[in-house]
Amino acid sequence: MALNMQTTLRTHTCGELRLANVGQTVTLTGWVQTVRDLGKFAFVDLRDRYGRTQVVATIEQGELYDQLRKLGREYVLRVTGTVAERESKNAKLPTGDIEVRVQQLELLSPAKVPPFMIDDETDGLEETRLTYRYLDLRRPVMQQRLMLRAKMVRAVREYLDDLAFVEVETPTFIKSTPEGARDFIVPSRLHPGSFYALPQSPQILKQLLMVAGMDRYYQIVKCYRDEDFRGDRQPEFTQIDCEMSFVTQEDILSTFEGMVRHVFEQVLEVKLGSIPRMSYQEAVTRYGSDKPDLRFDLPLHELNAALAQTQFPPFREAVDANGLVIGIVLPGAAGYTRKQLDELTDWVKAPQRGAKGLFYLRKQADGNWKSSADKFFTPEELAELARYTGMKDEDLLLAISDRPSKARKLGGELRNELARRENLIQPGTWDVRWIIDFPLFERDEETGALNPAHHPFVMPHEAEWHLLDDPNADLTQVRALCYDMVMNGSEVCSGSVRIHRKDIQEKIFARLGLSEEEKQEKFGFLLRAFEYGAPPHAGCAFGLDRWVMLAAGGETIRDVIAYPKNSSGRDMMLDAPSLVNPDALREVGIKLL
Amino acid sequence: MALNMQTTLRTHTCGELRLANVGQTVTLTGWVQTVRDLGKFAFVDLRDRYGRTQVVATIEQGELYDQLRKLGREYVLRVTGTVAERESKNAKLPTGDIEVRVQQLELLSPAKVPPFMIDDETDGLEETRLTYRYLDLRRPVMQQRLMLRAKMVRAVREYLDDLAFVEVETPTFIKSTPEGARDFIVPSRLHPGSFYALPQSPQILKQLLMVAGMDRYYQIVKCYRDEDFRGDRQPEFTQIDCEMSFVTQEDILSTFEGMVRHVFEQVLEVKLGSIPRMSYQEAVTRYGSDKPDLRFDLPLHELNAALAQTQFPPFREAVDANGLVIGIVLPGAAGYTRKQLDELTDWVKAPQRGAKGLFYLRKQADGNWKSSADKFFTPEELAELARYTGMKDEDLLLAISDRPSKARKLGGELRNELARRENLIQPGTWDVRWIIDFPLFERDEETGALNPAHHPFVMPHEAEWHLLDDPNADLTQVRALCYDMVMNGSEVCSGSVRIHRKDIQEKIFARLGLSEEEKQEKFGFLLRAFEYGAPPHAGCAFGLDRWVMLAAGGETIRDVIAYPKNSSGRDMMLDAPSLVNPDALREVGIKLL
Repeated sequence: MALNMQTTLRTHTCGELRLANVGQTVTLTGWVQTVRDLGKFAFVDLRDRYGRTQVVATIEQGELYDQLRKLGREYVLRVTGTVAERESKNAKLPTGDIEVRVQQLELLSPAKVPPFMIDDETDGLEETRLTYRYLDLRRPVMQQRLMLRAKMVRAVREYLDDLAFVEVETPTFIKSTPEGARDFIVPSRLHPGSFYALPQSPQILKQLLMVAGMDRYYQIVKCYRDEDFRGDRQPEFTQIDCEMSFVTQEDILSTFEGMVRHVFEQVLEVKLGSIPRMSYQEAVTRYGSDKPDLRFDLPLHELNAALAQTQFPPFREAVDANGLVIGIVLPGAAGYTRKQLDELTDWVKAPQRGAKGLFYLRKQADGNWKSSADKFFTPEELAELARYTGMKDEDLLLAISDRPSKARKLGGELRNELARRENLIQPGTWDVRWIIDFPLFERDEETGALNPAHHPFVMPHEAEWHLLDDPNADLTQVRALCYDMVMNGSEVCSGSVRIHRKDIQEKIFARLGLSEEEKQEKFGFLLRAFEYGAPPHAGCAFGLDRWVMLAAGGETIRDVIAYPKNSSGRDMMLDAPSLVNPDALREVGIKLL
Repeated sequence: MALNMQTTLRTHTCGELRLANVGQTVTLTGWVQTVRDLGKFAFVDLRDRYGRTQVVATIEQGELYDQLRKLGREYVLRVTGTVAERESKNAKLPTGDIEVRVQQLELLSPAKVPPFMIDDETDGLEETRLTYRYLDLRRPVMQQRLMLRAKMVRAVREYLDDLAFVEVETPTFIKSTPEGARDFIVPSRLHPGSFYALPQSPQILKQLLMVAGMDRYYQIVKCYRDEDFRGDRQPEFTQIDCEMSFVTQEDILSTFEGMVRHVFEQVLEVKLGSIPRMSYQEAVTRYGSDKPDLRFDLPLHELNAALAQTQFPPFREAVDANGLVIGIVLPGAAGYTRKQLDELTDWVKAPQRGAKGLFYLRKQADGNWKSSADKFFTPEELAELARYTGMKDEDLLLAISDRPSKARKLGGELRNELARRENLIQPGTWDVRWIIDFPLFERDEETGALNPAHHPFVMPHEAEWHLLDDPNADLTQVRALCYDMVMNGSEVCSGSVRIHRKDIQEKIFARLGLSEEEKQEKFGFLLRAFEYGAPPHAGCAFGLDRWVMLAAGGETIRDVIAYPKNSSGRDMMLDAPSLVNPDALREVGIKLL
């Protein structure tokens, strides 16, 4: 607890009185949580950010008693009284041993009846809660989430400050960048017709801080992306943005692994141990995702080899036409009903997933087999599948087939869904790992064009530099010094070693087919800065909102943001965005279409 | 120094080797500051954020020697060698006792010749320095300023965290507010024709956090004002924004006085002592400014009473027509030459100040008087002026006359100018004080309309609440619970107690002549929130850029901002603002005028 919670208006908070305070005269301030009138006694639970304290008046107190019992929920009070031991204690409340016998009561503000229950459990729908966010944030669970966020940020800063990272603020008004998502833009009144762009990240600015010799930089910073809302996104979000000079990938991984361990230990009281690393290749082939959740196992099995002779048409097609059959063994699930299997089939075939079907194979304890395509399989083939996947009696094998990237993605999604249905995830467990060795390039599946998998400044593995010179090399095999940290199946951090060498940069631009003009237009500014002496450097950025959400056990990042936008980018409380006075538009040199 | 400055590429920084390291083999990385070829030896000063270290090769080392002496300024190196004691030590450098005898040299990056000297003193003009900011920030003095900024921010957070303030992020995309300066606006693509506004401050959002029961809030936050550039402003700037509940003005003053003392002591090693308070009235009448610099005295004297009989026309007019004659005694300055006095006269008469003239009176040691208007003054009148102002032999009295508010303002400006010319300010001294009791209302000098001096939510002094009910009261006499902190004549903090009581708020709106409709349109949102139980609350905001600038001894806030805009709001390095693709405009539903 803090040094001094006392103010002119209160002697204590509603969270701090204990038996040791009995007999003291105290003054508390706060909101009325509940009023109970028991005839002889009237009780009020007074609430502030620090806790709840019971305040009591007896019928002998006359007017004071009457005042107290007539208070409404959420009235703001100032109460002076004597601390007394309670007759019936409340073991659930830290202040549950005492009560305050009121001597003076000051109503600081009355309150309308709130539109939903102000408590951890509430009957408020999210849109109502967002409209009355100032009431929603009175709920202790919401206050605790905001406090957890602040504590995590504090622990991050502690760690980085101690390693001589300098917190540097970079500007919000920058220049539109050609890469990535859409920029939000801000019209300039002093330069009509020109616009600032809001940063999607301070990527270039932090690289320039390395060119400037700042050596170790961090910033906890708002970033902006004008994306269509999908999933759990916000147009503005917060990054822990970091960069170091004279380092290799190893330095970054160990430094930020240390940071994550420090935060977990200091704030969440979780000892993480060392953070394992997994290659992108392994993550994708074994778990169907570059952000696998390993709080449960359920690996993917690539079944093509076991299906060389299959007559089952979809599998036959996959084996013949460079497709992939992916299977997952769900232990002990041979008893799945037809209904359960139909539900799963519908789930994988839903439009957003688009599987063509779901094959299943039950290996029953009586030695019988039952599959969704019995007439296409000989018992030997089924036995081979079981042998190949290591399936045991009472296990269930589920399989899908598609082109490889889609089959893996479907497999990864099915794996997560099975874990959810089977409750395979122990609450309170953490799976934190680095995914490394991402590919440097990716090919557009439609045009066949080679693109940077992240951005064109990511350094390739030294062992593969020679491939850049080889006109026949399959460049999708070039691995990048690029890494993500994945927490319980969510990406919370992403980063890379940056190219500081002109020769390598030039080769990559050449392989990407960028003309001199495009290079200059898109990246000229950074390339020119690098000509004045760029150190080797690397960095990463953590998505703070998501990390806090995971730590807080929230459902969405909106739960850990004080005033979030709703899913269509609207602030329900402020009613923003909104119309603007035409004069204000004219002043900045624009008009509506 | 930090826990671990070692990385895969270096064993030490350029700032840490000492005699104790002699004999060790070390690897350093950094930029070439200087190269000196002495024939038998070649020396390189290698620089990083942490310091400089001398690296040496001897002619016997052949190629290595040759490599070293041919290096250019700002090349980036990795050097391995043995630490040895220097023959001629450099007492000015912390590493000046040693040098590194090079065994291995790796050129990490070459560098073009920088366009200006990379050192504390530089020949670069500001526009060039801003264009090549990544080189300007290599100058140790600039790095130290950014590090000082980070340290001050850290000390602020330490102090507030320990007092249970919660750091809460408020959004950047909010709704346009009707008060204050112009908002920057951001067109919304998802809601074409609508705009977000960027916050001029999180004022309303932090007040809502108090309604939400967060009790103690802070945020170090970017704010945005679309102003014409005057003086030392930036379109984006950083505030230390704070708010507390269940407090009085006294709690705020003592809490933030404590914060400022903590930062001065921790970061600047300055013990401030308690921070004096001065009323707005005293500041303005005695020093001609609501941000007086009291590192020097030079009080203003109101001379009307001593000039009751004056025949000097400008003073006569002031005395007769509600004007004010303001004098300043400059001790020991009776010897000011005619040229000096003419310069001062020109200075006060310059268009941006607009004085009508400057009267002077020399009181010479020989008992003679000399004034700029001798023929209008009897010796008795001059003696009376001297007696009234307490001027002594060899002192100089300067006086101007105008309407009172302008005369005071001119007096305040003249006071500062005299201190500058006379070097009255001891370097390294600090004058920090609270200015309190600002007026709640001000009258428009042209229309006579009553306006809030700050905003309409500032609480008046309780002693003056009755004036709000008195239709004949002079409301400009109502004092506000409003306070500024002034540091060496610059306002670094401003705040107020907010009105949480509906009855007082209604009276103030009534006296301001706001209709129900205007009230609802401008403030309805906050007033509605207050109906659900608002605690008494108060807060303040510090201008971080300015505070750091004062602490760093910078000339402008641009010196303590990594990537500032120039005086026309342009980022010279990024070339922003800039034109935007017409498609991007169409997408957000706007076009250029």
